[in-house]
Amino acid sequence: MKRMTNDVTATATSQLGFTADETREQALATLLEQVMNTRSVSDEEGPLADAVEAFLSAQSHLTVRRHGDTVVASTNFGREHRVVLAGHIDTVPIIDNFPPRWLKPGDPLIREDVAAAHPGERVMWGRGATDMKASDAVFLYLAATLTNPQYDLTYVFYDHEEVAAEKNGLRKVVESHPDWITGDFAIIGEPTDCGIEGGCNGTMRFDVITHGVAAHSARAWMGENAIHKAAEILNRLNAYEPQTITVDGLDYREGLNATLIAGGKGTNVIPDECRVHVNYRFAPDKTLPQAKALMMGADAGIELGGGEGVATGGVFEGFGIEMKDESPSARPGMDSPMARSLAQLVKARTGRDPLAKLGWTDVARFAILGIPAVNLGAGSPLLAHKHDEQLAESELTLMADILEDWLSTSAN
Amino acid sequence: MKRMTNDVTATATSQLGFTADETREQALATLLEQVMNTRSVSDEEGPLADAVEAFLSAQSHLTVRRHGDTVVASTNFGREHRVVLAGHIDTVPIIDNFPPRWLKPGDPLIREDVAAAHPGERVMWGRGATDMKASDAVFLYLAATLTNPQYDLTYVFYDHEEVAAEKNGLRKVVESHPDWITGDFAIIGEPTDCGIEGGCNGTMRFDVITHGVAAHSARAWMGENAIHKAAEILNRLNAYEPQTITVDGLDYREGLNATLIAGGKGTNVIPDECRVHVNYRFAPDKTLPQAKALMMGADAGIELGGGEGVATGGVFEGFGIEMKDESPSARPGMDSPMARSLAQLVKARTGRDPLAKLGWTDVARFAILGIPAVNLGAGSPLLAHKHDEQLAESELTLMADILEDWLSTSAN
Repeated sequence: MKRMTNDVTATATSQLGFTADETREQALATLLEQVMNTRSVSDEEGPLADAVEAFLSAQSHLTVRRHGDTVVASTNFGREHRVVLAGHIDTVPIIDNFPPRWLKPGDPLIREDVAAAHPGERVMWGRGATDMKASDAVFLYLAATLTNPQYDLTYVFYDHEEVAAEKNGLRKVVESHPDWITGDFAIIGEPTDCGIEGGCNGTMRFDVITHGVAAHSARAWMGENAIHKAAEILNRLNAYEPQTITVDGLDYREGLNATLIAGGKGTNVIPDECRVHVNYRFAPDKTLPQAKALMMGADAGIELGGGEGVATGGVFEGFGIEMKDESPSARPGMDSPMARSLAQLVKARTGRDPLAKLGWTDVARFAILGIPAVNLGAGSPLLAHKHDEQLAESELTLMADILEDWLSTSAN
Repeated sequence: MKRMTNDVTATATSQLGFTADETREQALATLLEQVMNTRSVSDEEGPLADAVEAFLSAQSHLTVRRHGDTVVASTNFGREHRVVLAGHIDTVPIIDNFPPRWLKPGDPLIREDVAAAHPGERVMWGRGATDMKASDAVFLYLAATLTNPQYDLTYVFYDHEEVAAEKNGLRKVVESHPDWITGDFAIIGEPTDCGIEGGCNGTMRFDVITHGVAAHSARAWMGENAIHKAAEILNRLNAYEPQTITVDGLDYREGLNATLIAGGKGTNVIPDECRVHVNYRFAPDKTLPQAKALMMGADAGIELGGGEGVATGGVFEGFGIEMKDESPSARPGMDSPMARSLAQLVKARTGRDPLAKLGWTDVARFAILGIPAVNLGAGSPLLAHKHDEQLAESELTLMADILEDWLSTSAN
């Protein structure tokens, strides 16, 4: 077990650090407390980013760089391979769940499921406990203590993950400094109960549009009803049968759904437009262009920000389409030797096989860079964003154990 | 030709009146100018109602009563029959079309259709010119000048016709003072190009509702998509074939249309509700309960203000329904002797046969009271609510000629 003194004396309002007389468990808990106590709702990550930067800069084996509120720290041991460990430092907004605190066993705020899985343990309660300050604390601990890993390591602590994609700090650093983010494998610390969730479905959202001619509804025959025309859009959605597709051994369940519908100008006016907002979630066997072709034809030429075009094929052939959002899928990369060795270790420690990630996550950003990536983090994904987000203390050490073993020379 | 001095000295901000030295054409034009210049968008009818009340109170042969901003003036000559002449004094909102003004022949603001029908005439331009301040001006002129009519007369100038039915001034006065509104026949001055438009379709509006179960759209199978379920509502609307139904010799064209649709809570959420707002326009061969039964079954028990119920039959059987508005149809009453004599006169002056009124109008309120009613007013119905509402001057005198002849003892 490694142990190191941390002499951070940063001027940031918040300070991160643990002392040489703390046990490994104590050090992890101390870091978690400090990260949790530094409020970092999206758009307010500055103080936590300052503290993270100061903490990492105090480690002599790390090269630390910063872009906005994203901090990147790299080792340079000259190893053959490099692994990226990434965690977002922002949280969703606070609702009576800040400041955080430790709950003693038996505290009524401890959820029954958490208490049942971790009897007799104290529990960290508060905003960000699972999504994802526990994983951040583990990454910080590893950044300070892993001074002889078998791979070179790049730690990324980034801002604005919980908001619109254009604000995402990982996206920005990849675009501005692609040379900072290189590697052969990446782990994102999104909560997975320390299991592996690999790859992710792609997602796109677009409006399917019908047009009509307005008229007073007392003289409906002088108009053309755009809402009535939308029947065919909904019929095609109902006729679509979502598939489950296996990629690299993991099962991805697709989906095609209208999530919003709006049409009409007034209670007595024949509507001249109707928009059905459709969300298509597609498995990583498809590229973004392939997925678009299935919806609107391969040569429709309909692009984000390009306004309305007509679908030349696919599910919505013949209808107007306006793209609203698109994000590629990411293959799980479970066929790489590094992924396989991590999966074996996780299976041995937790009994869990890798699962497909269905929601879109930042693993896809690594996929775009050609870096296989998985989610692996402390805490239950079902508690993310919940009012009563919480984490049993041993979940921290389980994650630290797995990563320490996998990354240390001695463990392989 | 009658002529009378008008000595209105009301304290209202606006005054109505014409002088003894004005010709009949001049007096009509003066009244129209005054009514047009008094802004009276719905909810702001007070000043015009004050001016109308003052003008009518100055006529010694009239008994004037007021309820809210509705003014009712009656003759009491002891005639066998009574005719009601009714006009709403409010307008739809102003859009750069106030204050009004006279346009000289050749003015580019004069519409081509108006110029073609009335070459060489000046044209009143502005909000309310056709809907329906021209008819109001004619009614005011008749109220002052018809001192020896063959029928007793009741003039009704009412507020809030252009907005929700519960605000309608005619409705309110009928409910509060049914004895003020009695008679054997009624004419409402809605613009008809001085033709007769008889009766009206009934109308009802209701939401047809689907319910689902919300879920994140990345895990759509955990939810139930309410928008997809609305396909069947739109399919039934598309399958419905509207009929044309002849009542008392006039043809009523029905219609069943979705005018609004809304559903969904977010771009990434499986929607748990979708509402299709439906407008049913039904011919006067059906009562309101009969029409409702065709939509939602005879025993559904779904009432205005009663929230959502389930359709037990009819077009939307099985779906949730919430009533939003309902107004009965009105038979045209063209079989009454008074209607027949008016129709003959209009045919002689304009060459036009009576037509069915398709939109819902306040004639239905008279139908409820058992008073046959028709629409007959100056100006084109196609210009109502238009930005460039306008009226050629001779349209005023044509309407005044027809009504004066029909109502005067000398003309029959």
